[in-house]
Amino acid sequence: MNTIKGEQLLAQVNWRYATSKFDPSRKISPEDWAVVEEALILSASSNGLQPWTFVSSLIKKRAKDFFLRPGTNARFWIARIFVVFTAKTKITSEDIDRHVARTAELRGGTVEALKQFRNAVADDLVTGTRAAEAHEWAARQAYIALGNFLTSAALLGVDTWPMERFKPDEYDQILELPAKRLTSVVCCAAGYRSADDKKAGQKKCVLAGMT
Amino acid sequence: MNTIKGEQLLAQVNWRYATSKFDPSRKISPEDWAVVEEALILSASSNGLQPWTFVSSLIKKRAKDFFLRPGTNARFWIARIFVVFTAKTKITSEDIDRHVARTAELRGGTVEALKQFRNAVADDLVTGTRAAEAHEWAARQAYIALGNFLTSAALLGVDTWPMERFKPDEYDQILELPAKRLTSVVCCAAGYRSADDKKAGQKKCVLAGMT
Repeated sequence: MNTIKGEQLLAQVNWRYATSKFDPSRKISPEDWAVVEEALILSASSNGLQPWTFVSSLIKKRAKDFFLRPGTNARFWIARIFVVFTAKTKITSEDIDRHVARTAELRGGTVEALKQFRNAVADDLVTGTRAAEAHEWAARQAYIALGNFLTSAALLGVDTWPMERFKPDEYDQILELPAKRLTSVVCCAAGYRSADDKKAGQKKCVLAGMT
Repeated sequence: MNTIKGEQLLAQVNWRYATSKFDPSRKISPEDWAVVEEALILSASSNGLQPWTFVSSLIKKRAKDFFLRPGTNARFWIARIFVVFTAKTKITSEDIDRHVARTAELRGGTVEALKQFRNAVADDLVTGTRAAEAHEWAARQAYIALGNFLTSAALLGVDTWPMERFKPDEYDQILELPAKRLTSVVCCAAGYRSADDKKAGQKKCVLAGMT
């Protein structure tokens, strides 16, 4: 346990905002980015199934395809780090078997001992009533990861700009996702706010507290 | 800015797990819970629209309805704190106008100056192609909040148990959500792990890193 103080948490979640202008002269250090990446891949998901992938360095390699197209928001390019959150288009028995095998391997049990869990999950997401909505279920899990990512980055002083409105089909083609039964659901740029970003420091418009 | 060290973040996201047994003798202090609540209501959402509510204290008042029904998982009751994440069933012009009015009020601008933003959002979620999927969009936003909640709680040393498989209709009726155009999408118990929870400390089965 290495907990933080409440005021630290609140300072950083208040500091976070959807950055509208990144500073092109500042780059996230490899050390800080490694921490944010590690926190991201440890995101919670229903039954631990992680029906997602997070694509970043591949985008860097293919920067031209992504960032230099007409109409592309320059923020992506300036931020330098850009993550596409992808989610499974459907869940198969193989997905669950892979998770169960990995669990048994890492935790020192047997696949047999996990059979009840395996069948319950398969009966739900592969053949059950939720099978038809399995992509939507997977997309929601990816949004848990996004929520964790935004908070994790803010705690390290890294700014983010999440974005939903892009062309997923185009991204899917560039990233060769269809063959992997994945589709892009949300993106996020990461970097550091520009000193003259007018959106920084604006009051938070909270609409509803807890009831 | 009051950032934390990378090792602190990683220690706590690694410490987090879906708690299967809570300690009935330990209660979250009002101070800690106030911080977690505050962090939760500051969750990011698309265009800041916050198409959600988080219900907790109301559940406490109606504990009998929730926790003492046959078949209810005792974890809810033992954890003592239980949050239902709800999402709008559809988005109306009034929702957007309310957000715009609040923004103008808090940030000292005029509603008129936000008209372009207002219309773009309404054209998308109220009358546009995404209007039919607006509930699903809202549910995804609630999952961003869940991701933030799980990480925020872990940073304060608070354990959580998120849960998707419950009866939303039943919850909606008890919480009188239909009249508010809301429906429950996911729940989460919060408390402290029991010293003998066998799931604590198990290795994380990460399936995929960043690509």
